[in-house]
Amino acid sequence: MPIPPDAFFLDRSDGLPLQVQLRRQIIAAVSAGRFRAGEKLPSTRALAGHLGVARVTVAQAFAELVSTDYLASRDRSGHFISDRIERRIETEPSAPAPERFDWDSQLDHRFSRAQRSERNRNWRSYGYPFVYGQADPALVDHAAWRDCAMRTLGRREFAAVTGDLYDADDPELVDHIARLILPRRGIEAGADEILLTMGAQNALWLAVQLLLRPGAAFAIENPSYTGQREILAASGARILPVPVDAQGLPPENVPAGIAAVFTTASHQCPTNSTMPRARRKALLARAQAQGFAVVEDDYEFEMSFAGAPSPALKAIDRAGAVIYIGSFSKSVFPGARLGYLVADPRFIAEARALRGMMLRHPPGHMQRTLAHFLSLGHYDAQANRMRRAYAWRRAVMLESISAHGLRLASPDATGGSSLWLATPPGVDASHLERVLKTRDVLIEPGARFFADPAEGRGFFRLAYSSISAERIPEGIRRIAQAMSEVQD
Amino acid sequence: MPIPPDAFFLDRSDGLPLQVQLRRQIIAAVSAGRFRAGEKLPSTRALAGHLGVARVTVAQAFAELVSTDYLASRDRSGHFISDRIERRIETEPSAPAPERFDWDSQLDHRFSRAQRSERNRNWRSYGYPFVYGQADPALVDHAAWRDCAMRTLGRREFAAVTGDLYDADDPELVDHIARLILPRRGIEAGADEILLTMGAQNALWLAVQLLLRPGAAFAIENPSYTGQREILAASGARILPVPVDAQGLPPENVPAGIAAVFTTASHQCPTNSTMPRARRKALLARAQAQGFAVVEDDYEFEMSFAGAPSPALKAIDRAGAVIYIGSFSKSVFPGARLGYLVADPRFIAEARALRGMMLRHPPGHMQRTLAHFLSLGHYDAQANRMRRAYAWRRAVMLESISAHGLRLASPDATGGSSLWLATPPGVDASHLERVLKTRDVLIEPGARFFADPAEGRGFFRLAYSSISAERIPEGIRRIAQAMSEVQD
Repeated sequence: MPIPPDAFFLDRSDGLPLQVQLRRQIIAAVSAGRFRAGEKLPSTRALAGHLGVARVTVAQAFAELVSTDYLASRDRSGHFISDRIERRIETEPSAPAPERFDWDSQLDHRFSRAQRSERNRNWRSYGYPFVYGQADPALVDHAAWRDCAMRTLGRREFAAVTGDLYDADDPELVDHIARLILPRRGIEAGADEILLTMGAQNALWLAVQLLLRPGAAFAIENPSYTGQREILAASGARILPVPVDAQGLPPENVPAGIAAVFTTASHQCPTNSTMPRARRKALLARAQAQGFAVVEDDYEFEMSFAGAPSPALKAIDRAGAVIYIGSFSKSVFPGARLGYLVADPRFIAEARALRGMMLRHPPGHMQRTLAHFLSLGHYDAQANRMRRAYAWRRAVMLESISAHGLRLASPDATGGSSLWLATPPGVDASHLERVLKTRDVLIEPGARFFADPAEGRGFFRLAYSSISAERIPEGIRRIAQAMSEVQD
Repeated sequence: MPIPPDAFFLDRSDGLPLQVQLRRQIIAAVSAGRFRAGEKLPSTRALAGHLGVARVTVAQAFAELVSTDYLASRDRSGHFISDRIERRIETEPSAPAPERFDWDSQLDHRFSRAQRSERNRNWRSYGYPFVYGQADPALVDHAAWRDCAMRTLGRREFAAVTGDLYDADDPELVDHIARLILPRRGIEAGADEILLTMGAQNALWLAVQLLLRPGAAFAIENPSYTGQREILAASGARILPVPVDAQGLPPENVPAGIAAVFTTASHQCPTNSTMPRARRKALLARAQAQGFAVVEDDYEFEMSFAGAPSPALKAIDRAGAVIYIGSFSKSVFPGARLGYLVADPRFIAEARALRGMMLRHPPGHMQRTLAHFLSLGHYDAQANRMRRAYAWRRAVMLESISAHGLRLASPDATGGSSLWLATPPGVDASHLERVLKTRDVLIEPGARFFADPAEGRGFFRLAYSSISAERIPEGIRRIAQAMSEVQD
């Protein structure tokens, strides 16, 4: 694209002559890659006008740069960044570096240090991506989303879309969540018990900040969602992992003296076990007896295939000790960054104050578009479509897995958008992942889900949210093939 | 709106009979206000089908509630929430409250305690709103924004809009910021020196978290942006306010031993003074000598009326000690929640890790729409339109202010979208605000901008970003009138 006059800036109070400044700016931009070979510069007339200098000043700067091979001049077309710039940059002596601010010692690196997993940003380039948590263009009704987005952008909703809401939420979206979504989880909540967040990730972050007291300890499931453990690790709190079994978190093993326990009762992440009702009541009873809070991450309740989803912990929470986290990332799409917290009004008020300080509010356009998506029935249609597609893919997965003798680590799990598998003895899932990458297959090795990565060596997750039913059998075949090779 | 069958939820593993559960759900929803008088319930057939119960079960539950005045039955139309529910709710004995989780002692209230200002959420209802930081429908080109939003929602950009970007940014938007925006501030930055944020608010929050070490002290301008002081107060850091003068922050008064200084050099918030170049160099020299960082909040650089904006501190920052914050809230609209940090790559990497943990990334749709808005020239057109409109409104403001003998507290300020005024001796601006609210006028009293609110009694801000030029003279007249009355 042509380089606009606006890309240039002269400082008249600087000591350097304007022509020298202009030349240096072009050289610096070329070195930094902001101006690329072949791009057209503004005409000398336009640039001179923008900078408020004589046209000859610009012309002379350009001529100098043509003679030094930064620019090329084409008679009537004007000036262009030369194709020979690569060679030019190598021969340019670098200016002596000034003394730099010591960021290494000024920065606390606890956030980057807390990061555990390597995310596969180029997952789309794989032919067999058993990758969790991304949107599938075959299942997302983006025509409906576009229609809802358009409705939001008329004059009528200008204030909701463009205004600074400070720390408030879009009342329409809150209302729809309270009346259309939460009752399906058995939850009754008023507007003062609901806070919109930038996805479940944001809700988890807020919850941890608010529950964090000096010396606080948190109990988490083991294995558990990597992002949650990263947040807790960065917070500096003591983390007490509690191993899960085929029914999820065992309440009797949740230690005393904690500030809160984090649980994924509907679909345990990553095993997908569902916590039965008796355990749910026991967990809440223990929470009440011991005085700890319960953070319930209900991230993909919609994906229940064996009947209707079980009521949330929050639905039977008479003491108000449950902090419920919901998300639209899986049922709508993750790029929307919309989720919510449901909790005691005092907790919500404090979370609202913190969210307001951190980022004000989720963008009005996203909130209002989602409100329309819910009220017009598109969310329901899409969740149903996903459920049917995932149920079918799951069946294909299970058949292929059985046919190839792969081993399910959670045979009793009935929901979610992924399966949790075990490798044969001695096979490291991370090693298997590396081999499979060379064969166009992406899996998610188990190490990242465990407090001690070594515990996860024998497990891996295969999601079916981003792979079509048609491609699943070949993907599973390749996994089985690689597995048998690695075993030898 | 009619109550959908989905709003009902039965739990077969609960001890209670289904009919009792259904009745209780309706009663609870009515008490909570989720079902409102006159709303239509689903037909008995539809609800029975949804819940998987016999139709007679639903019919009996409805009949019981009709006899107890919760519901009204209209022969062929079905059942409705009764108009008599208010009286009904009063006579309902409340169930004994279970022992509630003690949130008061579990929560640290430092976030709500740090909140300083009363935000006027209903500012739109005022005829003369001299309110800062909201979008003006007369100036925002929402047709262009809608067009850009539409382009983003085609198949081609599905991945950018819907995908989970983890902690990455939309490369198109980063590229446009680097090539179209930053050069206007004299800043050269590569992609590894830029991080997108949810507005300047989010950028400030991130910066404080990363600079916060035990015992850290931060210098801030006094007066300063309320939101920044709230963030610092909530962080528990020591805050050292430095009074500003007609040229903004005096570098020689920035104390030693601080971790960082926060400054608004382009348009000091709230006085709108512009820091001259000599002071900028002195501030950076002091930062380098003392080893502290400089956080530069460049929130509305576009609104410069006396010639082109001065280069940013970041533009002359040879040591890499400046953390630059930019925002699209004023030049596009605040509801978009988009801003950016520009800093040393090590700082940006750490900020990216933290942002990823807090919220992943700003929504893909918002990022890509803004990228189009920039590349298609709409941002430039809108900034120009705003600049012209604000320049005109500012002229009208100054004329009215002069005509009524009101006193400018920053007579030398030449930019921004507000004016900083002083009250006559003895007139408390907060008192003036209360009087003016009864006369349909909104002003922003100075107390909220000062470390010690009492220092702000004699100041107030009048923004012209949300009031038309036509209405300004009458608004100023009412202010002058109220001021003279209060003085007596």
